[in-house]
Amino acid sequence: MPGIVGLLTQFTETAKPLTELAQILLRGDSTMSEGDRELIAALVSSRNKCQFCMRSHGATASHLLNGNKELVKQVQQDFRSAPVSDKMKALLNIAAKVQKSGREVSDDDIADARDEGATDQEIHDTVLIAAAFCMYNRYVDGLGTFAPDNEEVYDDHAKELAEDGYLRF
Amino acid sequence: MPGIVGLLTQFTETAKPLTELAQILLRGDSTMSEGDRELIAALVSSRNKCQFCMRSHGATASHLLNGNKELVKQVQQDFRSAPVSDKMKALLNIAAKVQKSGREVSDDDIADARDEGATDQEIHDTVLIAAAFCMYNRYVDGLGTFAPDNEEVYDDHAKELAEDGYLRF
Repeated sequence: MPGIVGLLTQFTETAKPLTELAQILLRGDSTMSEGDRELIAALVSSRNKCQFCMRSHGATASHLLNGNKELVKQVQQDFRSAPVSDKMKALLNIAAKVQKSGREVSDDDIADARDEGATDQEIHDTVLIAAAFCMYNRYVDGLGTFAPDNEEVYDDHAKELAEDGYLRF
Repeated sequence: MPGIVGLLTQFTETAKPLTELAQILLRGDSTMSEGDRELIAALVSSRNKCQFCMRSHGATASHLLNGNKELVKQVQQDFRSAPVSDKMKALLNIAAKVQKSGREVSDDDIADARDEGATDQEIHDTVLIAAAFCMYNRYVDGLGTFAPDNEEVYDDHAKELAEDGYLRF
């Protein structure tokens, strides 16, 4: 099975906290939409060049954002010029910094997000989603899992992730 | 409270899977010693320049390895010349690659670890410990937590982590 799916199926003990974390961060109660949270995951996975994750979470974000595949591509290519809110741009900026290193996030980055209306919980969740995908991406690529090339595979997987969440593994 | 301790205390919902994952990876049943697993965490945290994590897990590794602080420093500075087994060097090499990117790990890196006697489970756990600390380090630094300067703080914290594990939060 491709990407993280094979790993979660084979290594069930660690699969439990790994999927619980994803479920809380991406599907739990939040003032951020599920689509916006998947966009953060898709951006970080793209920066980490993790094919399986960037395509899975890109397709999932698109599914949750009214099928808008173009928006996901724009965010992955250059989120600053993408048609998302200024608050979302400030949060994506923090996520992009975390992808490089937690030490890249400055007081100004946090102040900018607050100025755009982001709450402390939203900033916390953005940092932890970005950090968690730095883990998932490395897990998927470090163990040499394969990423299918067929877009339909990701669309089907995205539909399940969007509708049923992460606790099925 | 310093480092990840404050985050785990304040954000309890995500603390649960975060601490369960650490407990399984660093204290669960394994053919790798707890000291060796903490050494991997200490190396990755050092490469990510996360002061709180590199000092906490460095002190914990030392506590579990008969108080050998010098060994931890040698591993963090240059694991290839440190007095650890060839198998451990091959696993530390994989962890160091994962710290940069999962995509850095080559078939040769995996073959080298197998040649030195590493099992698939040990290679899996090494990759996931390294990946997980790329998350914890970013969580700690991305949210600007503080790292005490006093070595005693880390030694006391390490004693608790070594003896009681990660499920107290």
